[in-house]
Amino acid sequence: MKLNKIEALKRCALEGDKFGTFLVFNSVNLTYFAGFQGAAALSVTQSEEPILYVSSVNYEQAKTEVKDFTIELLKSGDKLMEKMAKRSAPSKKIAVDSLPIESWRVLATAIGGEERLEPAGNIIRSLRMVKDHQELELIREACNLANLGMKVASENIHSGMKEREIAAEVEYAMRKNGSDGTSFDTIIASGPSSAFPHGSCGNRTIRDGDFVIVDLGATYQFYRSDMTRTFVAGNPTEKQKKIYETVKLANQEAFETIKPNVSAAKVDMAARRIIESEGFGEFFVHSLGHGVGLEIHEAPVLGPDSKDVLARGNTITDEPGIYLPGYGGVRIEDTVLVTEESAEKLTKRFYTLTDAS
Amino acid sequence: MKLNKIEALKRCALEGDKFGTFLVFNSVNLTYFAGFQGAAALSVTQSEEPILYVSSVNYEQAKTEVKDFTIELLKSGDKLMEKMAKRSAPSKKIAVDSLPIESWRVLATAIGGEERLEPAGNIIRSLRMVKDHQELELIREACNLANLGMKVASENIHSGMKEREIAAEVEYAMRKNGSDGTSFDTIIASGPSSAFPHGSCGNRTIRDGDFVIVDLGATYQFYRSDMTRTFVAGNPTEKQKKIYETVKLANQEAFETIKPNVSAAKVDMAARRIIESEGFGEFFVHSLGHGVGLEIHEAPVLGPDSKDVLARGNTITDEPGIYLPGYGGVRIEDTVLVTEESAEKLTKRFYTLTDAS
Repeated sequence: MKLNKIEALKRCALEGDKFGTFLVFNSVNLTYFAGFQGAAALSVTQSEEPILYVSSVNYEQAKTEVKDFTIELLKSGDKLMEKMAKRSAPSKKIAVDSLPIESWRVLATAIGGEERLEPAGNIIRSLRMVKDHQELELIREACNLANLGMKVASENIHSGMKEREIAAEVEYAMRKNGSDGTSFDTIIASGPSSAFPHGSCGNRTIRDGDFVIVDLGATYQFYRSDMTRTFVAGNPTEKQKKIYETVKLANQEAFETIKPNVSAAKVDMAARRIIESEGFGEFFVHSLGHGVGLEIHEAPVLGPDSKDVLARGNTITDEPGIYLPGYGGVRIEDTVLVTEESAEKLTKRFYTLTDAS
Repeated sequence: MKLNKIEALKRCALEGDKFGTFLVFNSVNLTYFAGFQGAAALSVTQSEEPILYVSSVNYEQAKTEVKDFTIELLKSGDKLMEKMAKRSAPSKKIAVDSLPIESWRVLATAIGGEERLEPAGNIIRSLRMVKDHQELELIREACNLANLGMKVASENIHSGMKEREIAAEVEYAMRKNGSDGTSFDTIIASGPSSAFPHGSCGNRTIRDGDFVIVDLGATYQFYRSDMTRTFVAGNPTEKQKKIYETVKLANQEAFETIKPNVSAAKVDMAARRIIESEGFGEFFVHSLGHGVGLEIHEAPVLGPDSKDVLARGNTITDEPGIYLPGYGGVRIEDTVLVTEESAEKLTKRFYTLTDAS
């Protein structure tokens, strides 16, 4: 499967006359192509076996775990950019996924001038957007673990519990069942801090009547899930129910628009229109969603200004929210797979506002 | 305390004639200066209040949590680089902490040419190396949590336990006691995988006679700890004891050289010499250590080629290791504070090879 990804990169980037070599430096892109964390760089040309550059600390592990690549040891004092420059295909341009300006300049010097270099991260961005069968299996498992985590959260939310204690129970359950760790810092945001979309998880004790936003995810063999549900501890007010039902409807309306060849902006608009029609438009302060995979936030972007178009195999979030400063907020989020003709929610478990224990 | 950090940046970068403005984009540097996660950028000039640029998703939270900065909302469609260019001090050069090449080019266009820009991440690297009183309190607490995690690991390591199960218990205990999460993916590497310095944490079941490397850390209010101990499940062999005692001595010898104004390379050499003298030199395949703070790996570097010199207030790791491919490995690691005249281990708990339950 790893070679399939390399072959796809060659087809997209190296078949024309433009690029002779693709140099990969971004650590997540390296994991994508090599299935291994801890390489320093990767060089791909049309004709030779891809070269994975690994320093001594990870060299033995790379030799054991990475097949079909030439593993090249970076010794102390070795100059990576010069080594890569020497082995790149002559005369043609060199595509680079991403480099900070300082390293870009070192590479440019090694290669004889930045005219031969071109940032080409977008090519890998497009490849990573479409998940293959194996990636989808891992994302499904990460979503199953998130479903389990949400069940544990719902069982632990009640007046008197601290946000942090709930996170501890959630993370423990996911870990015991196979998670390699959280896919981001778990958010348990209660009461006023539920009005902050990234309200974190602190020592606050939950009180009756609080909104409690639970935003969690698991990592499974490098792949991630993302899921949010909102509960009320005790009995919700009419206003809370109204906000909740609006967000729930927005989540569902957006979901029903998701299919291949639909613009991501249109999916965002489906949710935004519902929230605006109920008078909460100014309180939906973020985009509807984002891709999920090796990173918790990756392509595509689902927002009003997005130029992305959905395709089969995208895994994206659908996460409308309403946040009233000083009052509280609601978000409902699924990780969704774009299928051949429509879409499938991978975070299946649903809860009502009052499903907290 | 946050303003102290801004004042230090001004003193180091803006008092001479060279730079009129410092632009900060790196997310960890932003957390360092603003004490807040989720800003997009920061602009610092000599005379005006620092400007923190925040998009709508985090705007309300930033307004509540960040004092002494002007919080500027980035609306959808706003061009960050153009906004920053307009508000930078005229005529003088602009220091930039770090940018990928694509964004660098956008900023250069906005500013009227890259001649006015200069990468200056090293200035912030130097500032962040020296921890202030408040940062040290947080790192101490993160180290206390690591001490607790190690205790739980030692109680759970025995034949029949899976690596992942031990990690679950460790992480749960740290979380329940105040950790905001792990400071990196917990490593429980047993048997042959203990020979990989970054051997991870999988489904392998521990067996009698295995080396088990436990490398863990907690995050506490953004600050991190890093600690490693190695155990044997059951009774160690003479060879295991020999490797262990060599690493333990190397850790101690290095510790005793740590003080202000000593070169980091010299500290590395103190450990390396011990390991070489016992014939294991080629199996110590990494640097002795690294700085720890907001990031798990930050400045200074403690390795053979390092140009860094230690100073009071550095928090660094001292982590020699010996890794025999196919056999197993040992690493012992402390987070160490450089004090006025010597050094203090912040990861205090010690264990012997046979302290696993």
